Amino acid sequence: MSPVTDPERPIKTVLVANRGEIALRVVRACRELGLRSVVVYSTADADSIAMQLADDAVCIGPPEPGRSYLNIPNVIGAALRTGADAVHPGYGFLSENADFASVCAEENLIFVGPSPETMTALADKAVTRALMSAAGLPLLPGTTSVLTGAEEAERVAEEIGYPVILKAAAGGGGRGMRVVRERAEIEDAYRRTQTEAALAFGDGSLYIERYLEGARHIEVQILGDRHGNIVHLGERDCSVQRRHQKLLEESPSPALDDATRAAIGAAAVAGARSVGYEGAGTMEFLLDRDGGFWFMEMNARLQVEHPVTEIVCGIDLVAEQLRIAQGQPLSFGQSDVVVRGHAIECRINAEDPARDFAPTTGQVTRYRPPAGPWVRVDSHLEPGVTVSPYYDALLAKVIVWAADRPAAIDRMIRALDELVLEGHGLTTSASFHTDILSRPEFRSGDFDLGLVATTQRTRTELP
Amino acid sequence: MSPVTDPERPIKTVLVANRGEIALRVVRACRELGLRSVVVYSTADADSIAMQLADDAVCIGPPEPGRSYLNIPNVIGAALRTGADAVHPGYGFLSENADFASVCAEENLIFVGPSPETMTALADKAVTRALMSAAGLPLLPGTTSVLTGAEEAERVAEEIGYPVILKAAAGGGGRGMRVVRERAEIEDAYRRTQTEAALAFGDGSLYIERYLEGARHIEVQILGDRHGNIVHLGERDCSVQRRHQKLLEESPSPALDDATRAAIGAAAVAGARSVGYEGAGTMEFLLDRDGGFWFMEMNARLQVEHPVTEIVCGIDLVAEQLRIAQGQPLSFGQSDVVVRGHAIECRINAEDPARDFAPTTGQVTRYRPPAGPWVRVDSHLEPGVTVSPYYDALLAKVIVWAADRPAAIDRMIRALDELVLEGHGLTTSASFHTDILSRPEFRSGDFDLGLVATTQRTRTELP
Repeated sequence: MSPVTDPERPIKTVLVANRGEIALRVVRACRELGLRSVVVYSTADADSIAMQLADDAVCIGPPEPGRSYLNIPNVIGAALRTGADAVHPGYGFLSENADFASVCAEENLIFVGPSPETMTALADKAVTRALMSAAGLPLLPGTTSVLTGAEEAERVAEEIGYPVILKAAAGGGGRGMRVVRERAEIEDAYRRTQTEAALAFGDGSLYIERYLEGARHIEVQILGDRHGNIVHLGERDCSVQRRHQKLLEESPSPALDDATRAAIGAAAVAGARSVGYEGAGTMEFLLDRDGGFWFMEMNARLQVEHPVTEIVCGIDLVAEQLRIAQGQPLSFGQSDVVVRGHAIECRINAEDPARDFAPTTGQVTRYRPPAGPWVRVDSHLEPGVTVSPYYDALLAKVIVWAADRPAAIDRMIRALDELVLEGHGLTTSASFHTDILSRPEFRSGDFDLGLVATTQRTRTELP
Repeated sequence: MSPVTDPERPIKTVLVANRGEIALRVVRACRELGLRSVVVYSTADADSIAMQLADDAVCIGPPEPGRSYLNIPNVIGAALRTGADAVHPGYGFLSENADFASVCAEENLIFVGPSPETMTALADKAVTRALMSAAGLPLLPGTTSVLTGAEEAERVAEEIGYPVILKAAAGGGGRGMRVVRERAEIEDAYRRTQTEAALAFGDGSLYIERYLEGARHIEVQILGDRHGNIVHLGERDCSVQRRHQKLLEESPSPALDDATRAAIGAAAVAGARSVGYEGAGTMEFLLDRDGGFWFMEMNARLQVEHPVTEIVCGIDLVAEQLRIAQGQPLSFGQSDVVVRGHAIECRINAEDPARDFAPTTGQVTRYRPPAGPWVRVDSHLEPGVTVSPYYDALLAKVIVWAADRPAAIDRMIRALDELVLEGHGLTTSASFHTDILSRPEFRSGDFDLGLVATTQRTRTELP
């Protein structure tokens, strides 16, 4: 976890070990920095825009992620075969896999991310809790090591009081967690969550926390270099979630006052510093109704919602990742980070909001993304692209900026109205976003993680 | 020219009296502000994206501009028929036509622009020179009224010294002007420029100025409201021109130091204030090699290159125009205007750089605009759109932002490389821009209005 003190080592060629919009995002950054880029692809992703724009592309296997994007030997082989000297993992897939980062190091490939040691520590969410507690960060009552079984879960729950939340230690991204409201439910909840975690992450270890009702999800973007400099780039509010999945993110948060904003930023930096963090990372917190905040987990990678931070700060996070990975010091300090205006991102997913967000698949026949002033669309779509069931449902990220939050909301509604995305069998979640953006609670800024569930309940109850 | 002191009058419906990308730009602003929009169209522009996104659309005639976009009765009729209470003229066409603004006023339609009196004064570039001279702005030696004939031109030229430039008093947008380098040429030059001006603007009046070699084109964006508030939004450098036509614009200018920047901004505000300017306008200057600047003309409308200002200032100029037109005071003062980073715009024209920028026409068969971080494309294109010979050659404006000028140049090159625009018979000027952006003179920032001519000469001379 101590910072490596290698001299600067320039990157010439980056292997992009991902797909979809984030592969394209990284290829674009490489081109702008004058770096050669090579994308890997499964047979389901042949001829993507990222491939068209990259300098080279290598097929690494069939559609199933385990046989392509998660197959470490295939990805490493592609890097070595194409003379890459660095690997950008994007998010998801191998991005938080410490073994992968270790293999990269063994093969003399620069892994664009923190050290394997830091990744190992942060991969176990229970261990992370212990580290952050030691660093003085506020934590909700709960365990700082994995639970030994349902009995311990029950005992701790009695101690800290219901409701509690069971979480997979190897989890992340909102998967593998379950809220438990009373003692009678906890044993069954434990078994089910453990089984799900084992299936999803290959590790059934769980930990437990007090569950906070009416909270918001606030996360802080961190950048750290190899020279010990760590800055934060303000917060993102990701409180519009459905079943712990983020759907809409914004920066700054409408729920923070200046004092809390400064405190949460300082806490995030202290936490990242305590693990010698290098690269782009995110400290996730829950914010309660009284302005108290509680560390949840750290994500040791770029996040889907990174654009809202980029737009308000005017800082290119992928370019910074690549600079840091070459051993360069950060080119700016904390006081140079100035948040301007307001940014919102809507994740347009291949999901049907009218059928409980059931996944949809199909071939894109028509696609016209919204455009014009302060509208950014990060997407790998074009006519002919097939949305397959193998990968996550993200089709496009629509990001807008405006001078203030009300104007950003209006701009996003305009942008979503403008989106044309048609395909046989394809339905998207765009209409869900328009609904949320129009709700008085969202507009007021006064809402919590229950917003989506409330919205859905209200709709069901209506005639 | 004195500010009208009407009370605030809210706009409900805006007639967009233009076509192409700027019609779409205005429709988008209207949607974001909750205003109804109606676009007019000629039969050559049926089913444009602007029409698809507007609330209503009215055909105002056949493709020939004189019978549609320049036909005042047809445009006014469309406004009245659809219940519009305001007219946004965009740029070009009727945007600087004081008669049109007067007819709007007579029909109780809010013209989104300055008063007819201000427009009349600014429409005659010789009169404008006199007004700005009186306001204390630095002017190049020349006339402040129109020339009576070739003899006067010759006499004034002797007085101020060659080279001189003859300009159409009714001109603008870089048309109707001719540089004269010696006495023997002036009579012929006068006749030819007069004829061209008469044909192009229906008015052969000319004026004369000293011609400045090695100058740059610097213009300052102005916003003025009905309450006497006038601010400037920094400068745009439009020195990449071919035959007085702007091809690439950037903000801020790489040629201004802080003192000159402050002085030119203050001069622009003083000039605009002297004519009681309301709305968005632009004060154009020439900058000499010693940092001296000289007023050229004022454009009483939104300009093609307005996005570079929007992006660095974070201010939506079309929204501000619409607010000002409703009688609202500016929501910010001069000290709130902060320029951040660097923006560049490339005009992608239907012109073939390999054949001396000959216009091209045809139907778009494939179009994929560049996208991703800090890339904005303002364009009316989509597959199926026919580029006709009736209108100007502008196909798309590619605008990028980055933290500094070198990064903005790299981003623009990336964006242009990404552009896919294909059509039977269609060639674009995109390759020209990539060439210019890669030239050491452009990258250094040390170039003048001769850059393009020099580039072309060098190329011709090469084997």
